[in-house]
Amino acid sequence: MHIEIWSIGKESDNFIDEGTKHYFQKTMPWNTIELVVLQLPKKVATTDPVRAKQQEEEMLLKKLQPGHYLILLDERGKMLTSSQWAQQFQQCMNQGVKTVVILIGGAFGVTDAIKKRANQTWSLSGLVFPHQLVRLIVAEQVYRAFSILNNSPYHHV
Amino acid sequence: MHIEIWSIGKESDNFIDEGTKHYFQKTMPWNTIELVVLQLPKKVATTDPVRAKQQEEEMLLKKLQPGHYLILLDERGKMLTSSQWAQQFQQCMNQGVKTVVILIGGAFGVTDAIKKRANQTWSLSGLVFPHQLVRLIVAEQVYRAFSILNNSPYHHV
Repeated sequence: MHIEIWSIGKESDNFIDEGTKHYFQKTMPWNTIELVVLQLPKKVATTDPVRAKQQEEEMLLKKLQPGHYLILLDERGKMLTSSQWAQQFQQCMNQGVKTVVILIGGAFGVTDAIKKRANQTWSLSGLVFPHQLVRLIVAEQVYRAFSILNNSPYHHV
Repeated sequence: MHIEIWSIGKESDNFIDEGTKHYFQKTMPWNTIELVVLQLPKKVATTDPVRAKQQEEEMLLKKLQPGHYLILLDERGKMLTSSQWAQQFQQCMNQGVKTVVILIGGAFGVTDAIKKRANQTWSLSGLVFPHQLVRLIVAEQVYRAFSILNNSPYHHV
């Protein structure tokens, strides 16, 4: 199963880039994973939240394939444990899902159309994290989930 | 008010080091913050959980000053929002606290004596994060808390 982390915004800062690659490399023996950074035309992103969300919706709906299993990260989503992430990925594999897309929404959230398209909506924490840091957290949690599924000692709870 | 993040374990990986420094620098106009890495004698840390916890307790109790306001991070703690972190730091300042210590426990948790010494116990998430990543998350949340208290636009919720 292939996993893509979709993140709207700019390219990763150096330490985020290094950190996500660190966890991607550890995950690679078990499954492929990549970060896809989606950029809006400059200016729109910061000056007009309503138009930005609308443009993000168009971009996302165009890019989403029917077979993509979409997990939306949103603070109003379900708060899962790391073991539950693992169980969910296992269920996806059991269902024959080829690609899981984990979407980190833009700074102003996502539109209702995207929320409806999402197969699941998860929350990471009651805390608000910057999108760059969410990339790193997700990279680590995916590695953790697959280490659980493969009985690696990384997750020892 | 001075903030210290105490973390038991090894020195930070490169990307964690770079990331925490990134947030420390942003926080510095408002308050001082530093990471204190506490290391146990080698071998004990990994081979004997019970002895490791006991040695950690001794090390921590020796290092804690009466004036230290201790916040323990533990998955069984209270899950606060970022705004609540800000409120808690504000209350500490109102009470004249000089130093807040945010303690990231060892791999096997902390002893009851440390739990009792803690002024508060907070949880970051239902997810399990590696201790290195927790250093970075805490650095960012402290920056976010002080940006809230100082009406900086960083936290726009």
